[in-house]
Amino acid sequence: MLDVALLGTSGMMPLPDRYLTALICRLKGKMLLIDCGESTQVTLKILKYGFKNIDIICITHFHGDHVLGLPGLLLMISNSNRTDDLTIIGPIGLRKVVESLLIVAPEINFKINYIEIKESVEKPIKISGFSIYTTDLEHKLQCLGYSIEVERKGKFDKAKAIKNDIPKKYWGNLQNGEEIVLEDITYKSDMVLGKKRKGIKVTYFTDTLYLEKLKEFARGSDLLVSEGLYGDESKKEKAVEYKHMTFLDSCKIAKGGDVKELWLTHYSPSLTNPEEYLEMAQEEFKNTNLGYDRKEKSLLFEEEGE
Amino acid sequence: MLDVALLGTSGMMPLPDRYLTALICRLKGKMLLIDCGESTQVTLKILKYGFKNIDIICITHFHGDHVLGLPGLLLMISNSNRTDDLTIIGPIGLRKVVESLLIVAPEINFKINYIEIKESVEKPIKISGFSIYTTDLEHKLQCLGYSIEVERKGKFDKAKAIKNDIPKKYWGNLQNGEEIVLEDITYKSDMVLGKKRKGIKVTYFTDTLYLEKLKEFARGSDLLVSEGLYGDESKKEKAVEYKHMTFLDSCKIAKGGDVKELWLTHYSPSLTNPEEYLEMAQEEFKNTNLGYDRKEKSLLFEEEGE
Repeated sequence: MLDVALLGTSGMMPLPDRYLTALICRLKGKMLLIDCGESTQVTLKILKYGFKNIDIICITHFHGDHVLGLPGLLLMISNSNRTDDLTIIGPIGLRKVVESLLIVAPEINFKINYIEIKESVEKPIKISGFSIYTTDLEHKLQCLGYSIEVERKGKFDKAKAIKNDIPKKYWGNLQNGEEIVLEDITYKSDMVLGKKRKGIKVTYFTDTLYLEKLKEFARGSDLLVSEGLYGDESKKEKAVEYKHMTFLDSCKIAKGGDVKELWLTHYSPSLTNPEEYLEMAQEEFKNTNLGYDRKEKSLLFEEEGE
Repeated sequence: MLDVALLGTSGMMPLPDRYLTALICRLKGKMLLIDCGESTQVTLKILKYGFKNIDIICITHFHGDHVLGLPGLLLMISNSNRTDDLTIIGPIGLRKVVESLLIVAPEINFKINYIEIKESVEKPIKISGFSIYTTDLEHKLQCLGYSIEVERKGKFDKAKAIKNDIPKKYWGNLQNGEEIVLEDITYKSDMVLGKKRKGIKVTYFTDTLYLEKLKEFARGSDLLVSEGLYGDESKKEKAVEYKHMTFLDSCKIAKGGDVKELWLTHYSPSLTNPEEYLEMAQEEFKNTNLGYDRKEKSLLFEEEGE
């Protein structure tokens, strides 16, 4: 099971009743955060997930509304007595940006590992059970889209274990993914497991022009969290000028990528009533839902929900 | 008349219902802000004072909770189409700190003038009608206390104007502070005005050890906004260790400095119920009031209130 919560839904600036867009994913107590604008730590406090177990922070791009909350959040994580390394993933220049922001917070008591994405590749970054994929978006500066996957091993296959002549006492270890080496023989977990089962996939896109390739990147996501700067399609031209997406743009990606559910977010401060455009969006992609601050959902593995 | 509003009352971290300590002063539409932690722009939005006319920002010291809101606020001011210079006053290293934080906000469309206070002097900095005095506090790093004074000219003195042989048509100009030069004669405003009247004074202290000299610096303030990290005097030792003040410390300054009113602020997140300690504080200094987010007051010149 993967818990997700949208920490905010605003674009450009934090509003009193709408914090900046950010998403937190929690897997067995370990957390991954995407984006961290000013006040992200405040909405996280309301959610009560804690700070200490944030292992990974993914930054889409270096505009203030996606990154200015980092020094305050890192101080909070430090105050929560974290000592384990923390990984920050982001565009080229990440270390320079974060270290520059940390000028007033020199006393962080854990190490930060920086992963700067020069160009997105197919191989995921694997940390704390999360498999992290990036894709290149198109904004005014380098900007990354993210897919977070939780992989799922196959079921234990007794017949296969017997066929492969695995000593019974190691069945449990192998089932848990361990490798057992006995003199000349190496037993691997795939020797007792059936074929890999469908995992959980969450995809996050903001701020970008609509790109056809995003359908493929998002394909099969259990949840797509994606930008809807404007609901009103008459503002499409303005969205394109500033390299952002409308509700319909995100709906097209959701539909084309055959995702299960879409949450819209990164609303313009001028979009005071997103509800007005929901019906139109649902005509394009039925399972469109409006994001709101601290909207939560537990995404289950396929059999879990049965 | 000077309007003041306490934007937040929290110390160390912004809380969902208690923003970080900062004070805004508004004089004839022009604004001066003291301190700018993360989310200061959000509480300012609730107050609806606008952003464009913030002419001066005074920073007490370079701990995150007093300065991390600066890049976001400067972006907001820039978005409000300000083109006039803005002045930031603070400890040594100010320019370096602010420019470092602005790494993700390069597009500010006004000039910032930096005034770094090496050591406090008696002469005020005068901008937009505010006379700004600083004093050196004692914290873990250089920290400044501020007094903001609004000076007040004397009343128009008709007998004096006649005695000084001022042509009647210039009385108005001179009363408004202008200087009139006519061939060999220079007419100055003090030739038509009575003696200078008492102005308005607001003093702001956080984060500091209790210092006797602060009574003198605060003397006669209409309002003292001062730190009360703890209400419970059993935490005095802890306050001293981290170089902070308790409720009683600020009350002693208020009493010794003969100020009119004290607002306590910069509460520890552990201080969930400041009311508990109010009565004790009022025994030390009667006109002690608890600060709360967006507590506002209009301070009047002496005759204005009569």
